[in-house]
Amino acid sequence: MKIRLYHARILTMEEGREIFQGEIHIQDGQILYVGEASPQENGEGKSPERPVKWDREVDCEGNLLMPGFKDAHTHSGMTLLRSYADDLPLDEWLNHKIFPVEAKMSGEDIYELSKLAVLEYLTSGITAVFDMYLTPETIADAFDKMGMRCVQVGAVNNFSQSPAMVEEMYQKLNGKSPLQSYILGFHAEYTCSKELLEKMAALAHKYKAPVFTHLAETEQEVAGCVERYGMTPLAFLDSLGMFDYGGGGYHCVHMSGEDIAIMRDKGLYAVTNPGSNTKLASGIAPITDFLKEGVRVAIGTDGPASNNALDMFREMFLVTGLAKLREKDASAVDAMEVLKMATVNGAHAMGLKNADVLAPGKAADIIMIDLNQPNMQPLNNIAKNLVYSGSKQNVIMTMINGRILYEKGNFNTKEQPWEIYGKAEQIRKKIMG
Amino acid sequence: MKIRLYHARILTMEEGREIFQGEIHIQDGQILYVGEASPQENGEGKSPERPVKWDREVDCEGNLLMPGFKDAHTHSGMTLLRSYADDLPLDEWLNHKIFPVEAKMSGEDIYELSKLAVLEYLTSGITAVFDMYLTPETIADAFDKMGMRCVQVGAVNNFSQSPAMVEEMYQKLNGKSPLQSYILGFHAEYTCSKELLEKMAALAHKYKAPVFTHLAETEQEVAGCVERYGMTPLAFLDSLGMFDYGGGGYHCVHMSGEDIAIMRDKGLYAVTNPGSNTKLASGIAPITDFLKEGVRVAIGTDGPASNNALDMFREMFLVTGLAKLREKDASAVDAMEVLKMATVNGAHAMGLKNADVLAPGKAADIIMIDLNQPNMQPLNNIAKNLVYSGSKQNVIMTMINGRILYEKGNFNTKEQPWEIYGKAEQIRKKIMG
Repeated sequence: MKIRLYHARILTMEEGREIFQGEIHIQDGQILYVGEASPQENGEGKSPERPVKWDREVDCEGNLLMPGFKDAHTHSGMTLLRSYADDLPLDEWLNHKIFPVEAKMSGEDIYELSKLAVLEYLTSGITAVFDMYLTPETIADAFDKMGMRCVQVGAVNNFSQSPAMVEEMYQKLNGKSPLQSYILGFHAEYTCSKELLEKMAALAHKYKAPVFTHLAETEQEVAGCVERYGMTPLAFLDSLGMFDYGGGGYHCVHMSGEDIAIMRDKGLYAVTNPGSNTKLASGIAPITDFLKEGVRVAIGTDGPASNNALDMFREMFLVTGLAKLREKDASAVDAMEVLKMATVNGAHAMGLKNADVLAPGKAADIIMIDLNQPNMQPLNNIAKNLVYSGSKQNVIMTMINGRILYEKGNFNTKEQPWEIYGKAEQIRKKIMG
Repeated sequence: MKIRLYHARILTMEEGREIFQGEIHIQDGQILYVGEASPQENGEGKSPERPVKWDREVDCEGNLLMPGFKDAHTHSGMTLLRSYADDLPLDEWLNHKIFPVEAKMSGEDIYELSKLAVLEYLTSGITAVFDMYLTPETIADAFDKMGMRCVQVGAVNNFSQSPAMVEEMYQKLNGKSPLQSYILGFHAEYTCSKELLEKMAALAHKYKAPVFTHLAETEQEVAGCVERYGMTPLAFLDSLGMFDYGGGGYHCVHMSGEDIAIMRDKGLYAVTNPGSNTKLASGIAPITDFLKEGVRVAIGTDGPASNNALDMFREMFLVTGLAKLREKDASAVDAMEVLKMATVNGAHAMGLKNADVLAPGKAADIIMIDLNQPNMQPLNNIAKNLVYSGSKQNVIMTMINGRILYEKGNFNTKEQPWEIYGKAEQIRKKIMG
């Protein structure tokens, strides 16, 4: 499959490279060429032999091509719980609404509900997600069926999964298909016994592998850990050797100076989830402190029960907006920094080194942004337009691994939306009554 | 022009009325009938004589009809400044970037730039705006040309406009056309001399009319007024008799308990602008305190220099999200309350009593929300879906005064988007170089 995207503006997200006008050539899921309209042997990638027989040529009409967004923390199967339990105190939300419904969900349900999430990711230009949920195998099947890239992470806690199962999935899902991978992880310090955490740290050492977990999402979580172990969650986990091979935390809202130093020293990723932290009143993460210390920040939507949208544009505005509010400084966290978090940093956190920027040899995970919409005009600054006035509405193409899965409002997935909506609604009726 | 919208879900926004399935009939800009599919003489509006010769019948395919959003504070002409000066400290932003550009804008420029804003409002389901900017007559012409409803408000300060000009516009623009109106107002306490403010208060008394102004947007603004007059801006303005016939404030971020009591006692509207207050690091408005005291809250985007989007979905999420963060309470400000602010309260603040809810005799300012998109599935709760996962992408029809101006991504305005974009870009090149 050879595709040519031409008459485009291109934001490769390579460090220091400005937006330029040109084209991108794709073959078999990989980027062959990124450069000007008349490709030369210029180190940008070899000029393809002409004439090339393209399977498809797309006139981008001056619109913007850029790397797809990486949603670096989500629970896709929770689409079932969207708008089911909002405007409630956190405890009531979790214990009386979320947990009882989750207890009724089967692997087959999660398979269907994850496909619904995939449709939504595609509309928002998200080309890969970092998913933590209950049934890794059916989740991998769902993403494979839809043609979407998914990095799963272990979700073990005292009540579900086990270190043995995490290890099994680590072996089974890595290499299972070109689009699926799996990273070691556990739910959170406060839902895992010390014994369980020690087993996870042992796994990290066995595989010399990074570990991810929910971290310092709420004040209560941090206070609970300090009471249990006399340390913050990150200091405690680090004392077990959990992060000796890297990894990171989701949320990272309530972080001490010492915590941030650990993040820096171990090269951990802080995956921020501002939509969820806002809606659940958890607080505002110290993004400017992370940046000051050189801690790499990635961005996730969290699941649809707590956000409730899977919309990277909302998250990007919130990352910088909430930092500005927190620091009382309108200059906090520049728009380009936010774009880097939403693309390059997310890819690196998820182990997707090959899906970070647009360059020859990289995976063809590419989105097209419609600049011919009123919220993108005039063109004072395209990068700032993206972060401050951009919307899902501007996403007019989402390509994953060289396949165009979403284009101008239409899904080119194997299963059609109405089928997926129908199944989700059936599951809702079955479980919620 | 007779239009029938059928096979719809309908959210009328009448107090206590649930979403139901039915249809809406429209004639000459007015709603004739709202009710079930086989209309009866049931007080909902008279059943139209059958067979009726419809000019157009729209199958809504189960999607949602609701009143259009009211953007209760904006500066439409500032589209020119979108993404021109972001990520800067507030002072530098205003004095070194915004003011110098504004000094170069002509009335004709503002006419063109306001049309660009109208296109964006339509994509977000906004059917009326409360606009404060420099050249009221060319602004009214722009909105009339586009077919959009606009309530302008006086913007007088020490440097531009005058009480005499505000009075002239008040007489000239009210009644000029069915879509345009004008309300007394001034820029802000901190940009107006006491003498000027006394003249505005006299106008309010002369016309027994409400007055609106920027109010308590920043801490510095409040501190400055306390230093000048020994009172908060609201207490000072109220002491001049400014609000003896009602009105309200834009922003209302830094409000004392006494301020909120004045709002309540005078029946003033608090128009909140959370996107702008976030991006400019101004703070979080005390929405829950307003609600507790019975102060009516409406929602505005503010202008594209400070937000930068004109997107009511972003604002709705932020109104409740930031309240949740401020109060550390995930149950703060229910979604239905937010929808009321964005529709009914906005209309009432703007003096549009006839464009608040969907009912017979009301203006046909109606939007259709696509529920057949992944972010709206499953249908646990449509109102919460709108506020927590809704997006501009879900707006598939915007009707103003009985005319469908935007439909499934296409504009039915007299002027086409590419012409408007072209003119805005020309102005940008002329002014910014």
